[in-house]
Amino acid sequence: MEGIDHLAPERSKSQFDVDEMKIVWAGSPHAFEVSDRMSRLVASDPAFRKDNRPMLGRKELFKNTMRKAAYAWKRIIELRLTEEEASMLRSFVDEPAFTDLHWGMFIPAIKGQGTEEQQKQWLPLAQKMQIIGCYAQTELGHGSNVQGLETTATFDPKTDEFVIHSPTLTSSKWWPGGLGKIATHGAVYARLLTDGRDYGVHGFIVQLRSLDDHLPLPGITIGDIGMKFGNGAYNTMDNGVLQFDHVRIPRNQMLMRVSQVTREGKYVQSSVPRQLVYGTMVYVRQTIVSDASIALSRAVCIATRYSCVRRQFGGKKGGLETQVLDYKTQQARLFPLLASAYAFRFVGEWLKWLYMDVMKRLQAGDFSTLPEAHACTAGLKSLTTSVTADGIEECRKLCGGHGYLCSSGLPELFAVYVPTCTYEGDNVVLMLQVARHLMKTIAKLGSGKRPVGTTAYMGRVELLMQYQSNVQKAEDWLKPNFVLEAFEARAARKSVDCAKNLAKFSNPEEGFLELSAELVEAAVAHCQLIVVSKLCFRFIEKLQQDIPGKGVKQQLENLCIVYALNLLRKYLGDFLSTGCINAEQASLAGEQLRSLYSQLRPNAVALVDAFNYTDHYLGSVLGRYDGNVYPKLYEEAWKDPLNDSVVPDGFQEYVRPMLKQQLRNARL
Amino acid sequence: MEGIDHLAPERSKSQFDVDEMKIVWAGSPHAFEVSDRMSRLVASDPAFRKDNRPMLGRKELFKNTMRKAAYAWKRIIELRLTEEEASMLRSFVDEPAFTDLHWGMFIPAIKGQGTEEQQKQWLPLAQKMQIIGCYAQTELGHGSNVQGLETTATFDPKTDEFVIHSPTLTSSKWWPGGLGKIATHGAVYARLLTDGRDYGVHGFIVQLRSLDDHLPLPGITIGDIGMKFGNGAYNTMDNGVLQFDHVRIPRNQMLMRVSQVTREGKYVQSSVPRQLVYGTMVYVRQTIVSDASIALSRAVCIATRYSCVRRQFGGKKGGLETQVLDYKTQQARLFPLLASAYAFRFVGEWLKWLYMDVMKRLQAGDFSTLPEAHACTAGLKSLTTSVTADGIEECRKLCGGHGYLCSSGLPELFAVYVPTCTYEGDNVVLMLQVARHLMKTIAKLGSGKRPVGTTAYMGRVELLMQYQSNVQKAEDWLKPNFVLEAFEARAARKSVDCAKNLAKFSNPEEGFLELSAELVEAAVAHCQLIVVSKLCFRFIEKLQQDIPGKGVKQQLENLCIVYALNLLRKYLGDFLSTGCINAEQASLAGEQLRSLYSQLRPNAVALVDAFNYTDHYLGSVLGRYDGNVYPKLYEEAWKDPLNDSVVPDGFQEYVRPMLKQQLRNARL
Repeated sequence: MEGIDHLAPERSKSQFDVDEMKIVWAGSPHAFEVSDRMSRLVASDPAFRKDNRPMLGRKELFKNTMRKAAYAWKRIIELRLTEEEASMLRSFVDEPAFTDLHWGMFIPAIKGQGTEEQQKQWLPLAQKMQIIGCYAQTELGHGSNVQGLETTATFDPKTDEFVIHSPTLTSSKWWPGGLGKIATHGAVYARLLTDGRDYGVHGFIVQLRSLDDHLPLPGITIGDIGMKFGNGAYNTMDNGVLQFDHVRIPRNQMLMRVSQVTREGKYVQSSVPRQLVYGTMVYVRQTIVSDASIALSRAVCIATRYSCVRRQFGGKKGGLETQVLDYKTQQARLFPLLASAYAFRFVGEWLKWLYMDVMKRLQAGDFSTLPEAHACTAGLKSLTTSVTADGIEECRKLCGGHGYLCSSGLPELFAVYVPTCTYEGDNVVLMLQVARHLMKTIAKLGSGKRPVGTTAYMGRVELLMQYQSNVQKAEDWLKPNFVLEAFEARAARKSVDCAKNLAKFSNPEEGFLELSAELVEAAVAHCQLIVVSKLCFRFIEKLQQDIPGKGVKQQLENLCIVYALNLLRKYLGDFLSTGCINAEQASLAGEQLRSLYSQLRPNAVALVDAFNYTDHYLGSVLGRYDGNVYPKLYEEAWKDPLNDSVVPDGFQEYVRPMLKQQLRNARL
Repeated sequence: MEGIDHLAPERSKSQFDVDEMKIVWAGSPHAFEVSDRMSRLVASDPAFRKDNRPMLGRKELFKNTMRKAAYAWKRIIELRLTEEEASMLRSFVDEPAFTDLHWGMFIPAIKGQGTEEQQKQWLPLAQKMQIIGCYAQTELGHGSNVQGLETTATFDPKTDEFVIHSPTLTSSKWWPGGLGKIATHGAVYARLLTDGRDYGVHGFIVQLRSLDDHLPLPGITIGDIGMKFGNGAYNTMDNGVLQFDHVRIPRNQMLMRVSQVTREGKYVQSSVPRQLVYGTMVYVRQTIVSDASIALSRAVCIATRYSCVRRQFGGKKGGLETQVLDYKTQQARLFPLLASAYAFRFVGEWLKWLYMDVMKRLQAGDFSTLPEAHACTAGLKSLTTSVTADGIEECRKLCGGHGYLCSSGLPELFAVYVPTCTYEGDNVVLMLQVARHLMKTIAKLGSGKRPVGTTAYMGRVELLMQYQSNVQKAEDWLKPNFVLEAFEARAARKSVDCAKNLAKFSNPEEGFLELSAELVEAAVAHCQLIVVSKLCFRFIEKLQQDIPGKGVKQQLENLCIVYALNLLRKYLGDFLSTGCINAEQASLAGEQLRSLYSQLRPNAVALVDAFNYTDHYLGSVLGRYDGNVYPKLYEEAWKDPLNDSVVPDGFQEYVRPMLKQQLRNARL
């Protein structure tokens, strides 16, 4: 069976150039080349194998992560990889590790919040990994409400030091990855107290452990916070707890790019605009959107391939049964997720552009687009991560019973992904921020200032309030304009409705709290519109011009429309209750969707092949490239430690006596 | 902090008699008493502690399960527990074990499918646990399509034996719990081949392992299929793989209640109706619905209590922050789940009645209500398990970051629950069965035969097609009639739409496949109607009469309406597109819902206290009865094996060299 491509018939059915699609997915020929090379490098190296992960106990698991991180670093140095290559290599190792926080949070915190001098002092150490950092912000009692953090940093002018202290149990730092067992240093966030005042939360570089014996420094208590969701998943990470008992650090370890404390203890703002910090948030959330498309596409790839291997019911007597992907129920659940994976990928690319645009403007002193960009990335982070988390679990269910096995890769993928809905801004809290921005935008409409960026459509609010769709036949829904207008009208009306209801409250904050569930709905409608508009206009228009490769354009257009029409069906209550479309048009959308599913069906396997994932990265017997599922599933089973012996340890002690017992007085 | 009830202020706010509600929830004073006593028995016995479960490796975990199962059996015998008590004790141990399948599937299979003689031979052995059985039906290649099983049982008239054989890899039995390491016997399902014909799938009792040395008998290969989703979760169960190589069993080990093979190899039907088998399915699925309410209520209990402990944002400067349960966004996500937990509980009780009614009729030779009862339980199994699985995960997210810790109990609850969506009928496949039944019902409407049971409303289809809701103000939605009529009209119209579209196809089966996604939607609408109608009529009516206890009735009425109106909002597209209600009425439903949330808020903690769960059973630091969350969360963290040593094993080997390395040739 080895070496046979069981999915070859599927691949031969596809109607487009997969190699060209791989480049579209990767973003550019260069991005494809690097990603392809790094993924193969990891996949071909047995040191990076991960199939044994679910069976390891916590200590072994963590030791294994240290080994891989050290080995990855060794290869990065040996092969003289660029930063881009190194970062990709780490992501293909596909295992949360303390190094993620070091590279992804600690170093960026110094870069973003440190002065030039501080950067010169700390970055070389960090970049050579002579120190390892973590990002210690959240506390046992405070996550979302960063301004409520309790840890204090009190300036002592006598010694020119800050005294870092945890005044309560709930002020214990809680969750920082890399903190529990590894980090030597932390970017620690604490309330700055000086000159008799509380200046709110600021960042400090604090050494946590000795560079000699790795023991926590005096006054510092650190531990791991314990097991988390899933077998392997985030248990490879040492999320930690940290308490300070009057720990002293030099004054120059406050991150002082935006504000400083002088030798005398005066608090001073620098000329660097505070808004730069928001720029960093735009950056981080943009990467989360890109990562959402990766996580979702992995799950979709597994479910799509296995849905072609799995056969159940139907078929002629004695012949093969029907491939489960041929069932419309399977298509109606899977294809919208396939479309979402592509949609999020392109929106992620657009966000990259947005980030660069915002930064360029910030550097030129133009802060005008920042609030809109900030709201937009917050909303898209929320939207894409929620859909992805649910989508991975849906893909698991689409694999039937076998999706419940760790060897399917899907339980791990889910467990490792779901915290994304909570970290870097809880998804509901973020949508409320978007809603606030929308309400502000509406409030300003009368002022004559036109709304910008993704809220520009609000400038046409009067037209949109009167909009009624002109769709008359199913094919009309293939036209980007019809789709876009319906989404604009729905989003505008949901927001305007909220604004009207808010106006009924004498206290606007009270109104905002009372109507928050409706405000979240309006924000979701707005964010879905952003995705649809980027697909319809930026993306499909771009397609008209310069996408080469046979059939690639057609597939992408189909995916974009599937993304939009599926949302339209799912949120039909919105579209109908706001009167943007009528019931007949909704039914035509359903009809068009079914027709698009039929068109996607022969291309499904090729569309997931275009993600270019190695079998190592997928980590799924069900999602194997060659479709040789059942023999491998059988082979995997025998590797479970429970199969080390025929009669399990404990049987003689516990079960045998039960079987041999002579019962006298049972009532049963 | 010990001994203080941090949730006392919440409890004192409640407006109803919690003790009376406990009895309503349990079903009767007797049921409450047994459940209360058994749960305390388990909770107070340190042998049953389970908080260490996520940290155990697979072998230790499984050994621990054997220990608990043996100990539970010992207690059952010592205390001379009744069957009801024993079964409750096992469920409060709260850990999947091989004994579940022995008691829950193997013994019922013999009772349901064995002749009296076979029952006399096998039941005493099984009931004394002198043999331990499993239920070996699904195969690597076949789950949903039971009729497609490949294992063969060929009658050999020469020796009066069946030869059980696995002809292919995909015919390996795969998934049976208890099979992998423990079961001595199995109810094995195989195609019966005799007299030159294939008579389809039948059950056989097959001894799998020696009662002396516990080794698999000759010709039998058995193993565990490996790790599954979650840390502890179903990894305490030895789901197994099983292959037969021409294994011989005596003819009298075919389960022969419904059909027999004679000494000569003739296949004969007995006078016992085949339909009895469907009766068993009704029973099993009814218990799954009851279990859904239990699983969902556990998650809701944890999220509700913790939402009162957790405070974030808001609050006066220096004062306490706002309890997160006071946020409308939290209420709008949590309270519908609280209402669903109650709704499923009552529907489960009704299904018990339905099962007994069907069995009474079957025994009297009346098969008329069976198809409807079968469709109804299939649909409710699908509906309630899907909502519960998603609801548990939603509760986890409602606990913010800390819900991701195993010590929250929620990851386990989710991972152990989700297979319910797949086993005993995949939820989508079941909804298609319901849809088929609905289409048959509609097809027969012309014949003058009135539809029965839960499809009775179809008899008024002409009226329902013209229905337009008369709701004029928000309070109208409190009237059960308005709610019920809207749900009836929506369900009827969804079904009629499907029937009309089906009629356009010349080949009905083709039409059914093409429209299956829409058919599933119609079936969901029907099943939601069942729940709503049982709540609105059977349940609220019952309330009018005989529910004692201050305020209990009011709370239950509120929960019922919350259940219904939340669905109405969630499936608004259905209600609007079918024209049952208009946009204004939808908006009034939203208004009424918000008002009900405010009424539920002060009663929320008491409503989850009414479930009467011990802290042991909840297994959640976040859901502790006393609300003393943060000190206990902190305490739990230190129990992780990774905290056994300050410097983790592997640090010297892997991380220290990295920190001490002098880099020369890095490009970074």
